[in-house]
Amino acid sequence: MTSPEPPGRSAGRVAALRALLAQDGLQGFAVPRADEHQGEYVPPHAERLAWLTGFTGSAGMAIVLVQKAAIFVDGRYTLQVGDQIDPAVFEVRHIAEQPASDWLRESLSGGGRLGYDPWLHTADGAARLRAACEAVGAELAPVAENPIDRLWTDRPLRPGAPFEIHPPELAGETSADKRAALAEKLAERGVEAAVLTLPDSIAWLLNIRGRDVPRTPFPLSFAILHSDGGVSLFAPAGKVDAALAQHLGSDIAVEPPEAFDGALAGFAGRKVLADPATAADRIFQVLEAAGALVERGADPCQMPKACKNAAELDGARNAHRRDGAALTRFLAWLAREAPAGDVDELAAAGRLERYRRESNLLRDLSFDTISGAGPNGAIVHYRVTPETNRRLEPGSLYLVDSGGQYADGTTDVTRTVAIGAPMAEMRRHFTLVLKGHIALATARFPAGTTGSQLDSLARMALWADGLDYDHGTGHGVGSYLSVHEGPQRISKLPNSIALQPGMIVSNEPGYYRTGEYGIRIENLVAVREAEIAGAERPMLAFETLTLAPIDRALIDRALLTADETGWVDAYHARVRDTIGPLVDPDTAAWLDEATRPL
Amino acid sequence: MTSPEPPGRSAGRVAALRALLAQDGLQGFAVPRADEHQGEYVPPHAERLAWLTGFTGSAGMAIVLVQKAAIFVDGRYTLQVGDQIDPAVFEVRHIAEQPASDWLRESLSGGGRLGYDPWLHTADGAARLRAACEAVGAELAPVAENPIDRLWTDRPLRPGAPFEIHPPELAGETSADKRAALAEKLAERGVEAAVLTLPDSIAWLLNIRGRDVPRTPFPLSFAILHSDGGVSLFAPAGKVDAALAQHLGSDIAVEPPEAFDGALAGFAGRKVLADPATAADRIFQVLEAAGALVERGADPCQMPKACKNAAELDGARNAHRRDGAALTRFLAWLAREAPAGDVDELAAAGRLERYRRESNLLRDLSFDTISGAGPNGAIVHYRVTPETNRRLEPGSLYLVDSGGQYADGTTDVTRTVAIGAPMAEMRRHFTLVLKGHIALATARFPAGTTGSQLDSLARMALWADGLDYDHGTGHGVGSYLSVHEGPQRISKLPNSIALQPGMIVSNEPGYYRTGEYGIRIENLVAVREAEIAGAERPMLAFETLTLAPIDRALIDRALLTADETGWVDAYHARVRDTIGPLVDPDTAAWLDEATRPL
Repeated sequence: MTSPEPPGRSAGRVAALRALLAQDGLQGFAVPRADEHQGEYVPPHAERLAWLTGFTGSAGMAIVLVQKAAIFVDGRYTLQVGDQIDPAVFEVRHIAEQPASDWLRESLSGGGRLGYDPWLHTADGAARLRAACEAVGAELAPVAENPIDRLWTDRPLRPGAPFEIHPPELAGETSADKRAALAEKLAERGVEAAVLTLPDSIAWLLNIRGRDVPRTPFPLSFAILHSDGGVSLFAPAGKVDAALAQHLGSDIAVEPPEAFDGALAGFAGRKVLADPATAADRIFQVLEAAGALVERGADPCQMPKACKNAAELDGARNAHRRDGAALTRFLAWLAREAPAGDVDELAAAGRLERYRRESNLLRDLSFDTISGAGPNGAIVHYRVTPETNRRLEPGSLYLVDSGGQYADGTTDVTRTVAIGAPMAEMRRHFTLVLKGHIALATARFPAGTTGSQLDSLARMALWADGLDYDHGTGHGVGSYLSVHEGPQRISKLPNSIALQPGMIVSNEPGYYRTGEYGIRIENLVAVREAEIAGAERPMLAFETLTLAPIDRALIDRALLTADETGWVDAYHARVRDTIGPLVDPDTAAWLDEATRPL
Repeated sequence: MTSPEPPGRSAGRVAALRALLAQDGLQGFAVPRADEHQGEYVPPHAERLAWLTGFTGSAGMAIVLVQKAAIFVDGRYTLQVGDQIDPAVFEVRHIAEQPASDWLRESLSGGGRLGYDPWLHTADGAARLRAACEAVGAELAPVAENPIDRLWTDRPLRPGAPFEIHPPELAGETSADKRAALAEKLAERGVEAAVLTLPDSIAWLLNIRGRDVPRTPFPLSFAILHSDGGVSLFAPAGKVDAALAQHLGSDIAVEPPEAFDGALAGFAGRKVLADPATAADRIFQVLEAAGALVERGADPCQMPKACKNAAELDGARNAHRRDGAALTRFLAWLAREAPAGDVDELAAAGRLERYRRESNLLRDLSFDTISGAGPNGAIVHYRVTPETNRRLEPGSLYLVDSGGQYADGTTDVTRTVAIGAPMAEMRRHFTLVLKGHIALATARFPAGTTGSQLDSLARMALWADGLDYDHGTGHGVGSYLSVHEGPQRISKLPNSIALQPGMIVSNEPGYYRTGEYGIRIENLVAVREAEIAGAERPMLAFETLTLAPIDRALIDRALLTADETGWVDAYHARVRDTIGPLVDPDTAAWLDEATRPL
């Protein structure tokens, strides 16, 4: 969270925007928190929403009309947005309860034109916005140049770091083999090419990574995969150096971004696949204007990318051992230092990052560490700042959710630790969360089962006490890619994607008592085939990847079944045997104690 | 299951149909197993599919083209259809794996017209068929008169029995109150009326029942609910006698079915609600031709009907006590008679029906009893016939799924019984099914939870052994109405309908070993609010309605947790205390033994 907006700055920028809109005959303009690739992280030069409004959350949209303006955010950001924006300029709306379409219906007048930058909205998103405009007789009008870019004079430069090779021994499959397999499927569908706009798809397909956005090694670019397995890669100058060009090989034609439009237009009269849920509306406009036969369907890289191969899973196991050693050093340090009451959230997060960096293999954190003491732990998407920083006090809980980007894998782990002696109620709640975590970790399920079907296993122990948590139970995780990736997830929301061997997902039930404490226990798990004697169907199960002790002081053994106690003891034995040899003797001694059988 | 089709009969009927189609310039005709109300049961005069093909299953569709014909059925009926139809006339297709749309794409030629009776397809169903026709340049053409009706000379008469009063003390709410509440919602939506085509909606709204289809007290009719709370009821002559007319009162205008078209056409220029998922396509054609403003949305009676009020729940409890006494008498009889090896499936089903009838309150069975010995128990939708009838043999399992229609409630219960000494494997499988049953019966869950979210609780014990079952876990049940009703269900399939207090659903996990035995344990349960000390959210739970012992000989206690054993013992104590006083001394003595603590 950045410091609050200087008074008046946002008002001035909005006024300047309105003046531009008036010149262009527009009644308003939509400013989403998005770049041309629709990822969770965007480069600084694409932070247009933050520039205009001051709001720095990872999702949201502002709409500026002549007379009024609103910003739409989700439940994670309703508090933060109030601290960051100028309420004299923007109304704040909860995007689910008061959707932009409703606001437009009240606010837009018939015959008017609402401008939007078709690079920054997916085709599906633009269609929703268009329907809202048309419902009041207004028009959604694409702009050729984003008016914010004309006003934003001190705009940061585009990220310049070159793309990097993702080595074949970590990728586990050559780009040529991946491209051949996908090309065959395109040919089967009778499609001549697929337009790729998601940086993780391009990274996976070409075995490359980049340094274009924080926390995620995305190589921002566009690509077209042809049905002969060749690829046209549209990347700014300087992104592909000689070594990378050699790695890419002769089947990959590197072209400047300016050539993308022409390449799309070249599909006149031919069938081309593009994903309306993820690709910018602009892509569809260019394809359709050129007379291409657009087949709308899912990005073909997403599913094979989600199903990690043996080399990627080995990499994940290595990354998790290394990361578990760093986290275990941190937990041992915390056990030594915290009871004195001198550790605060910032110091703790800094210490944990230092231990991860001392592996010398950390490329970046996989997200900003959530380091929440006491009541701050109950804020699900908490990010510590100097203003909110709290000391870890005896009798409280401390929640730390963090992860690392390593070349061989991406980690994401949450531990909740008792500072001093916990109250009985904290132990009960922690143990209920643990029961849910174990139920999911030990689940066996038939092939074809979705994460939606498994979600309740992680909640039922809390439900029995009349408790629950308001976030998903698990998200997909990339292989040295995004810490949040689809298409699979474990959630209350319906999802038709079956869990498949090799998929990595988080297992993270929690419990949050507002103003008091938060509890979350998160391990990453990989879907694997289950060997069950006498099984009548292909069955799947989870392999737990994350290795770090779970605070025994918070486990009320009386609430666990024998099987659950057995799981904790076996997991702790595995943590001790694997991590013990990787850490210093003091940490190893602490770990022996921390992983004693219950 | 009826006896097989006489050779050649179906060929003759199809030839006659083709001759009629040629006269009418049609390339083919679709014959669904449906009447104008789209219910699971249809009256004999609407069994057009059976007349044409010989197939008597409860779902399916034939399409007869000039050169070829096919019948489409689901997985329940793939065996039965092969026994009943003439393979020289009809190809058999599995409706999910080889949908009619694919077959039409291969079989229909451009420019042709496929006829259909718009009374027998929902608007959504007709739209799917139309899309399949249009994909090959053909047309879906409504017929004014169903050609089958012109050929079917010995067609049964329409059912003539008059409608009956459903007494207010059982309904728990007057029709006037129900109509006023719905009328207010229609007015809020700005809709002038709702077209009602589902007999259960009309039965619920007007507190009436009928005798028009087997096993379900449906009053076949159409109705229009006006936003002032008045209703136009379109029913054949003789359906509404003087007593019923008085019960209906002056706000219900009874009109002949011939007046329905004119009433629909009267909505020219006015807003009227109709449900495309359940109402016949014909309704929409008439409304749209007249220039009505059709609002497409769910039938407004379905949700309030699903949420039973206090009187309906009391009725359900009474019906389940009475029904449980009959089933307990049967189980005691079976325990005495079956070990000698002289009981067969037909005799058992007959004996069970006799005990139900001896209550003198049984209106009908709620469906044809599933009485499956040994391998027949593994056929999920088995119906015993003289040809398939088996003896209940020592060392086997017997599965009986049955229910009764009483004026105060509809029951549906399955018990699986060991005949003589069961094998260890049977006990293990039965106990895994029981664990799933208990997990669902004891689940607590937050308001807003859907049946899809709870489904896996009933399966996880089987999954752990690599086993599963290929049917839903629970279906809604009416209040002296259909034994299968929506919109809620407990199933692997996504469903957005939250479970709400008063909804009755079945809890029926199972396990089926083809060629050997089937296991299912089914109780009906009612959703209720859960009182949980310290609960932070509104929580729900289930009240088990069904009362009959679960075979102790099949329970492997070593596989149960202490909580699960406690549930069985408490359930059995409740069965003993409730049913014991209602049965003869011999049965009561047997029940005492059958409900001993584990």
